[in-house]
Amino acid sequence: MDKQHFTSGSNTVRIGNYLIEQLYSHGIRHVFGVPGDFILGFFNQLMDSKIQVINTCDEQGAGFAADAYARINGLGVVCVTYCVGGLKVVNPTAEAFAEKSPLVIISGSPGIKERKKDPLLHHKVKNFDTQFKVFEEITVASVLINNPQTASQEIDRILNAALTYKRPVYIELPRDMVSVDIFLDPIQNNTVAQVDQYQEKSDPIILMEALNETIDMINSSIRPVIVAGVEIQRFGLQNELLNLVEKLKIPVSSTILSKSVISELHPFYLGVYEGAMGHDAVREYVESSDCLILLGALMTDIDLGGFTAKIDQKRTIYINSDKFSVRYHNYEEISLKDFIDKLIESNDIKQRVDFINKPLYSNLEQFCPIKGQKITIKRLFQCINSFLKDDMIVLADIGDALFGGTDLVIHRKTEFLSPAYYASMGFAVPASIGTQLANPKLRPLVIVGDGAFQMTGMEISTVLRFNLNPIVIVLNNGGYGTERSILDGRFNDILIWQYSLIPNIVGGGKGFIVETEEQFEEALLYAESNTECFCILDIRLDINDKSPALQRLTEALRKSSF
Amino acid sequence: MDKQHFTSGSNTVRIGNYLIEQLYSHGIRHVFGVPGDFILGFFNQLMDSKIQVINTCDEQGAGFAADAYARINGLGVVCVTYCVGGLKVVNPTAEAFAEKSPLVIISGSPGIKERKKDPLLHHKVKNFDTQFKVFEEITVASVLINNPQTASQEIDRILNAALTYKRPVYIELPRDMVSVDIFLDPIQNNTVAQVDQYQEKSDPIILMEALNETIDMINSSIRPVIVAGVEIQRFGLQNELLNLVEKLKIPVSSTILSKSVISELHPFYLGVYEGAMGHDAVREYVESSDCLILLGALMTDIDLGGFTAKIDQKRTIYINSDKFSVRYHNYEEISLKDFIDKLIESNDIKQRVDFINKPLYSNLEQFCPIKGQKITIKRLFQCINSFLKDDMIVLADIGDALFGGTDLVIHRKTEFLSPAYYASMGFAVPASIGTQLANPKLRPLVIVGDGAFQMTGMEISTVLRFNLNPIVIVLNNGGYGTERSILDGRFNDILIWQYSLIPNIVGGGKGFIVETEEQFEEALLYAESNTECFCILDIRLDINDKSPALQRLTEALRKSSF
Repeated sequence: MDKQHFTSGSNTVRIGNYLIEQLYSHGIRHVFGVPGDFILGFFNQLMDSKIQVINTCDEQGAGFAADAYARINGLGVVCVTYCVGGLKVVNPTAEAFAEKSPLVIISGSPGIKERKKDPLLHHKVKNFDTQFKVFEEITVASVLINNPQTASQEIDRILNAALTYKRPVYIELPRDMVSVDIFLDPIQNNTVAQVDQYQEKSDPIILMEALNETIDMINSSIRPVIVAGVEIQRFGLQNELLNLVEKLKIPVSSTILSKSVISELHPFYLGVYEGAMGHDAVREYVESSDCLILLGALMTDIDLGGFTAKIDQKRTIYINSDKFSVRYHNYEEISLKDFIDKLIESNDIKQRVDFINKPLYSNLEQFCPIKGQKITIKRLFQCINSFLKDDMIVLADIGDALFGGTDLVIHRKTEFLSPAYYASMGFAVPASIGTQLANPKLRPLVIVGDGAFQMTGMEISTVLRFNLNPIVIVLNNGGYGTERSILDGRFNDILIWQYSLIPNIVGGGKGFIVETEEQFEEALLYAESNTECFCILDIRLDINDKSPALQRLTEALRKSSF
Repeated sequence: MDKQHFTSGSNTVRIGNYLIEQLYSHGIRHVFGVPGDFILGFFNQLMDSKIQVINTCDEQGAGFAADAYARINGLGVVCVTYCVGGLKVVNPTAEAFAEKSPLVIISGSPGIKERKKDPLLHHKVKNFDTQFKVFEEITVASVLINNPQTASQEIDRILNAALTYKRPVYIELPRDMVSVDIFLDPIQNNTVAQVDQYQEKSDPIILMEALNETIDMINSSIRPVIVAGVEIQRFGLQNELLNLVEKLKIPVSSTILSKSVISELHPFYLGVYEGAMGHDAVREYVESSDCLILLGALMTDIDLGGFTAKIDQKRTIYINSDKFSVRYHNYEEISLKDFIDKLIESNDIKQRVDFINKPLYSNLEQFCPIKGQKITIKRLFQCINSFLKDDMIVLADIGDALFGGTDLVIHRKTEFLSPAYYASMGFAVPASIGTQLANPKLRPLVIVGDGAFQMTGMEISTVLRFNLNPIVIVLNNGGYGTERSILDGRFNDILIWQYSLIPNIVGGGKGFIVETEEQFEEALLYAESNTECFCILDIRLDINDKSPALQRLTEALRKSSF
């Protein structure tokens, strides 16, 4: 293979290698996927590149892992074969779309020459473009690479779309195009693009008017508050948020989806705002504010506590990447970053007295296990709270893993990850793979329900294969706890597995059965001091046990229509 | 709950119950799925019906199980929640489309009333109709039930489409429609439809001309041969095929996808025809025929041995549900069933001498294990061949499970099932659940590669939960054997699991490690006499071992373009 394909002396490159080079320049160091005959040629090129291929057990796991990688790294890639691979990652792609994660799907496909006369090639569904059409519905940009003349520009366009909109994109690579040589125009800029390029630009006149109105509203308010949403993380604006909060001295809350966007120990941090689902003190503070500044938030039903949140539009400034509204009128062409930057720069904002928050809720006192006491979800999260270290990232799957997890106090920014809007079960275990590869300094603490674990948990095999060391906490209550709270039936039961024996299957890792508070603390301490492998904790919970947050949520959901 | 919703005294019924009643009348006794909040109301109605809910670990498993159920039962149902469930069954649905399996996808979704103002409800992707649009690409009919006035007719239309075209259909059931009462017009026929209704009708004049031409061609031929394709099974025409073969005394072969459509011990049966991939004797017989009658075959690349098949169109009669051609001209509006029926009825066909086939290939001699001999794939299939019982059905996953499996001699009709065209890995274990529930008299013999097992094999948990007893043979060679033959790299390796220990995880079943021929025979004999639970056999194979058929296939594929 040609290792020197991109040296300065040459301006000819194979299409597959061009794509690899561009991915690398955008920070991609790992690609997640499962090979298949229509993508084998590209896998072969990947093996010969500086990007590592991470084989997962199933494509679904690769999709979740790549989505998590994208959230941490700023871009993620899943690489699969045609239809039998690609159509298995539709759900993770939809998740990335819903929650704004810049995920690149690369799928092999039948060669352009093979498609003549529409033969029944294996993996084909209705037509050769069936998979393409499916992905058009769940991505912001898509391309079939069928023309060497335009291949490099098309690849650039697609990757730019992912980086600009923080949403998934689709590249279909017919197997007869992978090794086609393309000529790169030396005048055209094919080098690494600057990150700034991907921020949408504001109209300066509109921005000025919106800014003045915002400043007036802040200055005339008594108790302004910021709700910082997930786009702050996705667009890499955490430092800007911190500067803004500290300059304006305005308290800040997060949503569930954006939890940990600012250190939860910061004196200006209020807690997670989530309507009736959250803590009353946070809710009252936010909802009684006379100037509510929503920055980069998606107004999802879960973020709004099943729409129990009471946000008064006439006291609200709301900006995200799609929308800017003040009270009842809208502005267009204003970027979130520009707006925050200008607010920070402004000298017209009233100086406030330092806001020092005595945290509205806190579980930070040292956890002391009660001897012989059976473990409960509430106490489990209290224990985790006192156990969490600065080098850990919490990955919460859907259900009480997430809802109970909202009460954790996250030390630094972006150390809590969960599909808290799209809410697909089975995310957390594969996501731990993507997370730790994107940032090897972080040790994942996975909290996952037993139902979700049975969907994708065997990707623990991939964890072991690539020498990762998450701590996996399985909330074993024999079924779908959240649903039991809404409407129960035998369909909410699952078979009980011996999760602690899974290390015997995959040939590594350490398993624990946890029935008491002491056993839980012991297992966590063992995991803390044994970093060479994954640990899996089978937490035997009472079937009716639930966290206080889930209790609040299910009451809210029960009231909503169905 | 209203158990009496469908008594003769009442002509009012809830939409969900109407759907259940129609499914039941079409032979549905089991529905496969995973609950979620948007579908909980319908699950609750199902629990209260005569249809059993089969919870799988993951929706992907439910999709494969329901597809297999559809192939055996004539209709299958997978029932899931919105997007996070539905989008996980896109791949099994695509498989059902490609291979003509009448699969009904029922998905819950947000209530119609909840959709006003387009709120960000959990599980939503781009728009509320994103999932609907995705399924439009991979089904033959789809409906969003949003109008009680038309709900019953729409449900009828959708189910009829599945039964007519033997392809998947999609029903989206908003959660606020499930319990809406609808009034059934007593004049309208809402009772069980007759199967005949779903056969497309022929134009009698066109049919007559085509028939006469066919008969002329058969009568003037010396060595006619029939290739019976998968539609014979899907449209339930196996008895008609048998009558035709025995009346015309014309030898018959199958394709891989239709393998076992006729008993492979029938004296008129030649073997599987698959171009260069198959046995030379079958190939030579078929390709040298002066009158080749292709009945209900899909001309896929795998069926055609990677397009190595040499079929001479000027000597061919080709009919399936989409097409009828004789030599180079086409007829329209002729149904496969009508054509076969008329051929059987005809008195104008030349009487031939009885064709008694000395099977062109056979492995039916009793397998005798060689003491201490390491097991090979070739010998493994020889052993299975002498072990197969009349009450067994072989489920072959993709890879050498399928290719090696083509040499098995199947005793009765439709006792070999594999996604031999769409070729999605991970089908066989979940398919064994659907298969055995559709026909409890059959004991599944699952042959699955280790790569495919790692995708969906943990559905063995569902097997145990519902007291099924497949024999699962895992071909453990540490990776993707078929791909190794095409283009090898580390990406074809997987982690080696201790498959025989999986019973310890799920709490039932019996595991075996098999390294020698004797151990294999012993394990099979144990499994045969222990029918109360599943057995899983970890077959330790040499990494380079492959079946003779795979050897032939990979040579054919290597020659095709990529």
